[in-house]
Order: sequence, then C-alpha cells, then structure tokens
Amino acid sequence: MTVITDSGTAEPATATTTTATTAPSELDRARAQFRDDLIDAGLLVPSGIDGLYGRGAMFEDVIDAIDEVVVAAGRAAHADAPRRLRFPPVFPRESFEKTDYIASFPNLTGAISTFTGDNRAHRALLADRESGVDWDHHLASAGTMLVSAACHPSYSTLTGTLPDGGVLMDVYGYCFRHEPAVDPARMQAFRMHEFVIVGSPQQAENHRDSWVPRGLAVLDQLGLAARDVPANDPFFGRAGKMLAANQLDENLKTELVVSLYGDLDDGTAVVSCNCHRDHFGETFTIATADGGVAHSACVGFGMERIALAMFATHGLDVSAWPAQQRGLIA
Amino acid sequence: MTVITDSGTAEPATATTTTATTAPSELDRARAQFRDDLIDAGLLVPSGIDGLYGRGAMFEDVIDAIDEVVVAAGRAAHADAPRRLRFPPVFPRESFEKTDYIASFPNLTGAISTFTGDNRAHRALLADRESGVDWDHHLASAGTMLVSAACHPSYSTLTGTLPDGGVLMDVYGYCFRHEPAVDPARMQAFRMHEFVIVGSPQQAENHRDSWVPRGLAVLDQLGLAARDVPANDPFFGRAGKMLAANQLDENLKTELVVSLYGDLDDGTAVVSCNCHRDHFGETFTIATADGGVAHSACVGFGMERIALAMFATHGLDVSAWPAQQRGLIA
Repeated sequence: MTVITDSGTAEPATATTTTATTAPSELDRARAQFRDDLIDAGLLVPSGIDGLYGRGAMFEDVIDAIDEVVVAAGRAAHADAPRRLRFPPVFPRESFEKTDYIASFPNLTGAISTFTGDNRAHRALLADRESGVDWDHHLASAGTMLVSAACHPSYSTLTGTLPDGGVLMDVYGYCFRHEPAVDPARMQAFRMHEFVIVGSPQQAENHRDSWVPRGLAVLDQLGLAARDVPANDPFFGRAGKMLAANQLDENLKTELVVSLYGDLDDGTAVVSCNCHRDHFGETFTIATADGGVAHSACVGFGMERIALAMFATHGLDVSAWPAQQRGLIA
Repeated sequence: MTVITDSGTAEPATATTTTATTAPSELDRARAQFRDDLIDAGLLVPSGIDGLYGRGAMFEDVIDAIDEVVVAAGRAAHADAPRRLRFPPVFPRESFEKTDYIASFPNLTGAISTFTGDNRAHRALLADRESGVDWDHHLASAGTMLVSAACHPSYSTLTGTLPDGGVLMDVYGYCFRHEPAVDPARMQAFRMHEFVIVGSPQQAENHRDSWVPRGLAVLDQLGLAARDVPANDPFFGRAGKMLAANQLDENLKTELVVSLYGDLDDGTAVVSCNCHRDHFGETFTIATADGGVAHSACVGFGMERIALAMFATHGLDVSAWPAQQRGLIA
C-alpha cells in the first residue's frame, strides 16, 4: 500500500531545499532579518527557541481577517454542507497510529508523555532534575499525540458507512511539527484551516482539483501573487524518497506558493491541495454508501504562512497596506 | 520558597473529591449521562478516549459568545491597557521548568518527544511498532512541553524591568492536563481566557480581588448561578498536601463555582482568581520599576466549563434558551 499521509503546508516541497544549497547564506540572512523585523514590530514574540512564537494583537487580527476570506470561499463553494468541527491540539495515539505518520514523518512527530508514578518515583524525578539530569525517563506515554495536520482527528469520526454523497468537513486548529528553524514561515506550532471531503474517488479528485483555483482566488483577494505547483510531502529517509516520487508521479499534491524572499528561493507553500486516495478510508474503515472504500481529499490553508506572506508583500505596517487588504482588518 | 503554580480551573478544588466518596455512583452516572447527552446532541464528538472531544459547530458558537462577554468585561475593567498575546499550545521546556509545574503537578504534565534518529533507528522503531511493542523509547525530548495554564508562556516575555504601573496581559489559548475522566467538565485539552497582571504586590492583590465580582457578573450575564469559594490547587502527593493547606490559609486562590450536577457535588469551578505572590517574578527575573521582585495575579475563565455550565443550566437546545442568553449567540 502506498503510504500517503497529508503533511499539509509545513514543507514548501523540494524546491526550497534545492535553491538553499546554491545560495544558503543570503537566504538564511533574509529569513533571520524577516523574523527579527516581525519581532521588532511586535507581530511575533520570541519564546527562546526557534519556530515557537507568541502572536501579537495585530498578527491575530490579520489571521482573523484571512480566515473570513477563507470561510467565505468555503461558503461560496459548499454553502452549509460542511460539518464544522474543531479539535484540540492533541488526539489519541490510536488514531495517530492509523494515519501512519510515524512511518512517514517520524522526525516531525510529537508524542506526549506524563508522570504516572507515586510519591517515591516523584522524588526520584525531582532528584534527577535537581542534579541537572534529564528526567524524561521517569515519564510514561500519555496515550496522546500532538495533531500534525488539522484533518487528522476528523477521520475517526466517520468510521462506518458514509451517507449518500459523502461528507464534507470544515476543520480549523493548531498543528505541530518538530522542525525548529530560523525561517518564521517554518513554525513548530501553527494553524491550518481545512475543507475535507470523504466520499467517492471522483468526489475526492474533484475536491482537490476545484480547490486549486479557489485557493488562488483567496490569495489574490489577499493581494498575494501565488502560483500552483505539483509537490510532494517531505517523507523521511531513504524509503521516503520513493514515496515522494510516487506522490509527484501520481499528481496527488498541489501547493500554492508565494515568494517571501524574492528570488532567493522558489517560494513558500501557503495552501496545500491533497488527494489521499483510499488511505484514510482504508485505515479508519470508512465505506461509501455503495460499499466501496472511501477516498478523501483536503485543502489546507496555512494561516500563519498566509499572514507572513501578507506582511512580506504589503509591509509590516498594516495601516500602510493597499486599501483592499487594509479593509479586511477589523 | 512556597511553590505557587497556578493550575487554573481544571480542578474544582477539594470539595468534589470529598462529595464523590460519599455518593460516587449517582454522581458518576450523572456525569456519564451529561457526556452522552452532549454527544447525542452533536455538541461534543467522542475521540475514543476520556476527556478528549471534538467540538461541534454550536458548541463553538457558544464558546465565542461567552468570549465576547469575557472580552467586554476585560475592556470595562482595563480599557485598552492589556497586551493582547496569543500563544500556541506548546512552549519551551526551559520556560516550563521555571513554573515548577513538574514539582507540583507532575501527573498533569505533558512532555513532548520526537524522533531524532537516522534510517536505521527508524527501522528499529517501525519493527517494534510492527510487533506491537511500545516505541516511545526510540524518541527523544523535543525541548517543548504542553501549556498547562494559558498564562504560563506569558511570563518569559517580561524578564527584565517592568514599566511604571506594571503590565497587564490578555491571553487566550489551549491548555493540557493529563486527567482522563468521564466528567465532560474535566477535559484533557481546554481553553482558558486570562487577564494577567505583573506588577507590585498591591496591584496583584487588587487584580485578584477585583476580578471576583467581575467574574461573578460575567457568569450572571450568562444566566449562571455562581458563588465564590476559597480554593487550592491539586498539588501532587504528600508534600503537596502542605502546599495546598498553605494556599488556602494564605487565601491565594478563589474559584467561582457553578452546579452542573445539582446537589450531587459541591459544584464545578469555571473561573479561577489567583495570586502568585512573587513566584513568577522570582523565577522569570521580573523586577518592578522601583527595583522590587514583581508579583503577579491572574483571572482565568475556563471556556469549555462555562459552556458546559450553560448547557447544564439552560438545556442542550440553544433555541430554547432564555432570550437574554440566546441573544448572545451569533
């Protein structure tokens, strides 16, 4: 079985990596400068480690403005059909296991552990901590994992047989990827707003295809020059190279890309349109009304990345933005 | 040093525990029934494990309506003074360590680990997984922790000397506590909206004191019968018993409590008003303008618990709510 696990918009495909090796230092400087400027402007607040930031008030206002445009596009496309579901940032390990994420992206994974011992075990933990020794070995799995793509917790709600016409879902939430980086567009924790279809193979393909122009229209409304490119997820390791090649060959992933750093790289993926084939239908035992294995597809809007693209394009001072985009801010 | 680490609203103080031992089965049945009713109504969506739920559209609309009332109360109290900051659900382990949470609440903690090995190590992980063996020992600390109280990531932003008059912050985000339970009011992941002051000892005490009546007014506007009670955090273990007694003696924590299960328990804490004394000022090296160690205090609105209190009080069908509360829903 081909493992196709949506990794969404965290990785701007292979293009950036290629360019980065030809001009690493200038690109690195541009990323560090952008991050520092965002912090100086109070848009992001440093946490002490790469890829984790507090968000200032104006950054959040921009996120909300973007979301209104995304929601309007969803309504224009699907009216009230999507089930609106919101999931917390952690979900059961059992569901995580079914996504096969640990096989495809182990290095991005976030497993949660906690302390389950007694007083004596706690004293031992505190003694190690006091001596400056790592205390993780005193912990045990909490049975939960961080959510890697907003849609991952949604599939387990559909186990069984779908109604005629399949199910559309609107999900929005925080995702986690362990990839500390100076580039502010590569965060460890970020929000993704997704529209997901689970239904027939044809519905899944149509959903993916139809959201490419819709996604481009959303970005155009935000004043962003975007283009769609065939893409692949950053599958781990040697075996992953083949999976990535398959994904590209079979045209399963399209990313909408905006330039944040001029021509220093091939752009940053801010929206991702993905066909999962029968991967989630198979592993979460979801059948279509006529008894086939359900197929699925999703479009994911990377909210932080779109906001960063707006700041890179229109400047850090929202009051100086073009009227159309300024008008979107509450 | 007295360890005072705000655990917010996840624990309805000692009262519930006491009552639970005298009438456990009827209370347990009431909690399970409430959870099942919420799921049947599509307000919560089960995830397969206790304390983790997806949220339905109407549940989220109620959360947003509650938040508007909370925000209005904050504006009435503090105008535009608070810095509005939003943090992701994970934060650096180094900041977590400073909160001393692992000493006080190890059993509620969420530590994050990830895979940092090579191809061979990954094959070993997958082999263990294939054999049904636990694969956590293949992971290493990701350097991050789940946020336990919304205000925890905010203190590290203030290291240094405060401006005259201290700093007010408005923070809102997802919190994690590992305490799986049937009671829908005891979630593993939930949102807390907090107003935090960091300043002089007097400012901290005033903040805590003034938010007790303000919090009660918010709950009254939501049609909830609430009362304020002295409370303590659920400190871990034998040593924790003393910390809890101290916290009560020194009157550092007040909870606003609403009955979700009639007289089967002493109510559920939905808002928490906390004085931290110099705990965060000391550990995050925050000084007041006149050179003293900063004190801090916060009020935390437990958003899911308030929503659940509204459903318990007004019924699961929002269209049948009293006009005043129905009018709050968008």
